[in-house]
Amino acid sequence: MIRTHEAGTLRKEHAGQQVTLAGWVGRRRDHGGVTFIDLRDASGVAQVVFREEDTAHDLRSEFCVKVVGEVRVRPPGNENPELPTGDVEVAAADIEVLSDAAPLPFPIEGDVNVNEEIRLKYRYLDLRRDSVARAMKVRSEASFLAHEVMREHGFVNVETPTLTRSTPEGARDFVVPVRLKPGHWYALPQSPQLFKQLLMVGGLERYYQIARCYRDEDFRADRQPEFTQIDIEMSFADQDDVLKVGEDLVARLWREIAGYEVPRPIPHITYADALARYGSDKPDLRFGLELTDMTEYFSGTSFRVFQAPYVGAVVMPGGASQTRKELDAWQDWAKARGARGLAYVLVQDDGTLGGPVAKNLSDAEKDGLAAKTGAAPGDAVFFGAGKRHATQELLGAARLEIGRRRELIDETAWEFVWVVDAPIFEPVEDDKGERIGWTAVHHPFTAPKPEFADTFHDDPGSALADAYDLVLNGNEIGGGSIRIHRVEMQQRVFDVLGLSKEEAESQFGFLLEAFKFGPPPHGGIAFGWDRTVMLLAGQDSIRDVIAFPKAASGYDPLTAAPTPISPQQRAEAGVDFVPEDEEPAED
Amino acid sequence: MIRTHEAGTLRKEHAGQQVTLAGWVGRRRDHGGVTFIDLRDASGVAQVVFREEDTAHDLRSEFCVKVVGEVRVRPPGNENPELPTGDVEVAAADIEVLSDAAPLPFPIEGDVNVNEEIRLKYRYLDLRRDSVARAMKVRSEASFLAHEVMREHGFVNVETPTLTRSTPEGARDFVVPVRLKPGHWYALPQSPQLFKQLLMVGGLERYYQIARCYRDEDFRADRQPEFTQIDIEMSFADQDDVLKVGEDLVARLWREIAGYEVPRPIPHITYADALARYGSDKPDLRFGLELTDMTEYFSGTSFRVFQAPYVGAVVMPGGASQTRKELDAWQDWAKARGARGLAYVLVQDDGTLGGPVAKNLSDAEKDGLAAKTGAAPGDAVFFGAGKRHATQELLGAARLEIGRRRELIDETAWEFVWVVDAPIFEPVEDDKGERIGWTAVHHPFTAPKPEFADTFHDDPGSALADAYDLVLNGNEIGGGSIRIHRVEMQQRVFDVLGLSKEEAESQFGFLLEAFKFGPPPHGGIAFGWDRTVMLLAGQDSIRDVIAFPKAASGYDPLTAAPTPISPQQRAEAGVDFVPEDEEPAED
Repeated sequence: MIRTHEAGTLRKEHAGQQVTLAGWVGRRRDHGGVTFIDLRDASGVAQVVFREEDTAHDLRSEFCVKVVGEVRVRPPGNENPELPTGDVEVAAADIEVLSDAAPLPFPIEGDVNVNEEIRLKYRYLDLRRDSVARAMKVRSEASFLAHEVMREHGFVNVETPTLTRSTPEGARDFVVPVRLKPGHWYALPQSPQLFKQLLMVGGLERYYQIARCYRDEDFRADRQPEFTQIDIEMSFADQDDVLKVGEDLVARLWREIAGYEVPRPIPHITYADALARYGSDKPDLRFGLELTDMTEYFSGTSFRVFQAPYVGAVVMPGGASQTRKELDAWQDWAKARGARGLAYVLVQDDGTLGGPVAKNLSDAEKDGLAAKTGAAPGDAVFFGAGKRHATQELLGAARLEIGRRRELIDETAWEFVWVVDAPIFEPVEDDKGERIGWTAVHHPFTAPKPEFADTFHDDPGSALADAYDLVLNGNEIGGGSIRIHRVEMQQRVFDVLGLSKEEAESQFGFLLEAFKFGPPPHGGIAFGWDRTVMLLAGQDSIRDVIAFPKAASGYDPLTAAPTPISPQQRAEAGVDFVPEDEEPAED
Repeated sequence: MIRTHEAGTLRKEHAGQQVTLAGWVGRRRDHGGVTFIDLRDASGVAQVVFREEDTAHDLRSEFCVKVVGEVRVRPPGNENPELPTGDVEVAAADIEVLSDAAPLPFPIEGDVNVNEEIRLKYRYLDLRRDSVARAMKVRSEASFLAHEVMREHGFVNVETPTLTRSTPEGARDFVVPVRLKPGHWYALPQSPQLFKQLLMVGGLERYYQIARCYRDEDFRADRQPEFTQIDIEMSFADQDDVLKVGEDLVARLWREIAGYEVPRPIPHITYADALARYGSDKPDLRFGLELTDMTEYFSGTSFRVFQAPYVGAVVMPGGASQTRKELDAWQDWAKARGARGLAYVLVQDDGTLGGPVAKNLSDAEKDGLAAKTGAAPGDAVFFGAGKRHATQELLGAARLEIGRRRELIDETAWEFVWVVDAPIFEPVEDDKGERIGWTAVHHPFTAPKPEFADTFHDDPGSALADAYDLVLNGNEIGGGSIRIHRVEMQQRVFDVLGLSKEEAESQFGFLLEAFKFGPPPHGGIAFGWDRTVMLLAGQDSIRDVIAFPKAASGYDPLTAAPTPISPQQRAEAGVDFVPEDEEPAED
């Protein structure tokens, strides 16, 4: 190494030693003939003192330098207790500029006030910032712990292909033209789902992988075209076994990185309860404020709006004092989510009800309402009415918004919950809301709970899946299921989904073929690693825990990818190969 | 778990216990009313005994079953000392078929005699074979050890993008059309080279990754379109530092997996010496048989063939007794490698020289030849004459072939060697062998050794690189270099390579831009993980240590990838987007 010490490791006991440091020029202060420079490297910062102005004269921010000097204890009063190296400084005897730096597009030290695209274009400078570097280190440590936990449980780390076959899994596949077989394309996997099931057929019994996955989705703020998941599958296991592995994993991560002991077992909530109580299949349990099912309560109402299959309510504490403008804003908020609006009543200090809805309610409806919803004088009650699922989700979103506005959310809390017993199927509806088919809530390989094994075909809407999602603070961080391992049952699922035998054969034929050879019962789980690490590292966006994330539309401001390809690349890749003109195959 | 014990873990101390096992039906023997079945799971095999024939009657090979029964000590004389569970058996009381199995395309037990494509088509059955499963487990353990070593050295595991920009690195890129930016394509990375250098500019100082890489190359037996490398980069390091990390990594792997203590430090050989002595830049040091440089010896020869810039020789012990047919076969062997032939002399038992070349040599040339080459009576001496590098490589290949045929190679040996001081550039020649330019031996980011820093531009052919390859038993398993970190020097390399400023800017502009902001000196290494694990696991092919390898031309017999894509996929992916018709951008 061209240095003898890492800057951040210097302490009083080094006093008197000659050291060589290498790193970057951070903050600089000039005091009449003496220049103080914070020399930063990956380990931290040390103060370097230059006596002769000339030496330090040309040093600008982010020059990369090598400094030789003697460590000495700082003069009394000059210590910096904020800094691990704050008791000492290095009296520079010699300095070598390893490379200089142009003026920076944004400062490395302190807060950065530029748009994210600039930060991503100069990501290598952004990475010099302490908070960004720390997030990378947390991710690295979390990955190591994950490997350690999985190994302790006897799982085998297997790398599955990423140049593979297009298998519909909900999103579009990215595809890759294959030069050696013109007109043919690989697909990048949306997950290793089929391969991990094949590994179970292969008798490996316990598989995991920190796997890169790809989904060609429309841009959303917290999505990336490529992402990472911890992918886990085990044979001869039931739901409890998979959950235990999942809990062991998150418990280790939160213990060792966040210093938090996850209470075990992590509580369970059914999918139906999660929607009924929190209006979400990924409920944020850091605050209460549960929804109230008002369907029964309003079953005889003459108020047309509430004559609906489902009516629900959520209370906004202190919401009665909102201005007209604030209350109108809630209507816009609801409309932006595709609802007609958000009915509300305001519970006045004297207990009477205000707001436009109140006059449509009968006296009996008004009298019991505060008690039924748990609203107190000064609160607002928001209502949703319509189809159960969609209306619960609207109220759930309102609940979250209320939680944020009223600061009801304990930002220091870690609330894990397993959401279980989700339906296998959900209806596909046409424009008029008529059911025209079924789609899989998880994926088509998810097994029904045993009690629905023989009936799900006849009554798809009632059948529950042997599936589970791990939710943390309102974020789904993991999900999985026990899989179907019998061809006959798999075929019935395809039937419900409206997939013909031919379509199933063409898309999943190799899995069905594998299931002819003694497939074991199996199940698994996958953790969205970007989101898990984001939460663990206390970051707000998955982009904060990805070294080189893409910006909007999958554009990389740093490399300017994607780019046009050359006509030669295009020709070689066989993109425009026309099967009719087929030449003798190259292989 | 649906079982209480793993089959391979049963021992005498379990005798008397009721156990539930789950696994696959292996070998089966029927003995008059008693059926013995080897029940196999991932942990191993246990013998299960069925008393009533009926129960076991329908069990065929590879049925997946659950068995309940009592563990008992085998009757004296029936123990199987070959099997860890050989002292006990399980008396089946109940059996449940979890899934049945169709007739197998090849047997799971014992040797398999089908072509590889069948094995890959049914890879899930192949994986049930002990040797294949074991290779997967070795790979998993090796990966864990790699993570452990790198973490102990303070390296940060960073995942770099795989949807990125096309950057020429010697092979073709796989490209991926981008739906959200029609007409634009990502490239899959040939390595994380540029990103790891950017991470060094980013001040991370110590990066590693077990990275998936992609090269669209023509099919070769031991190549896959996607492969894995352990990618390492460090700042403020010199060659010794990088080599030490590399040695620590392989030492740990070989100690813990192969039970072999790698002698440290691993010896160095220069690139020039490796070629001169072994005719290879990845010399197999498991046997001697060095080449002899005969250029000086034949400097005055009248034999036209030996009037060449380089003449070398390699001895084949006992080669004088080869038949005419065998000697002719060597000529074909040489021609298949693009040489005109392989001149030879045969050292007779009386010391005189036979073979067609001998009569072209002067008496003096003949007299000293055995002593010069180290040949003994009964040996053959093969000669190569021509351009130094190509001729040395021909003789090196002959040396390997001799080693194999004469069984000179110690198959139990592990011979590691660092090959250092490779040239930075090698000439690009036209059809007539005239130099028309230079190409990088490693890659264009490789730094010259300090003594060539100022001169490589003027004399590219003599300049040595600050690069190193780790060679094991004749396989290059790792390679790397100290990188250029100054724009000015990088530009001079591009100049030698004939890359204009504009081309360099267009291909590597973002790296050159990054180098404006205080880049640290840095260097690294990458290990070809498939090949490293192949050697570690004692396998013959990288396909043996890849769970789902591709066959020839990148075809996957299991999933039948690659496949045609649908017109809808093609349209959506924007493959045929024509810029002239550009619509308003979608993003």
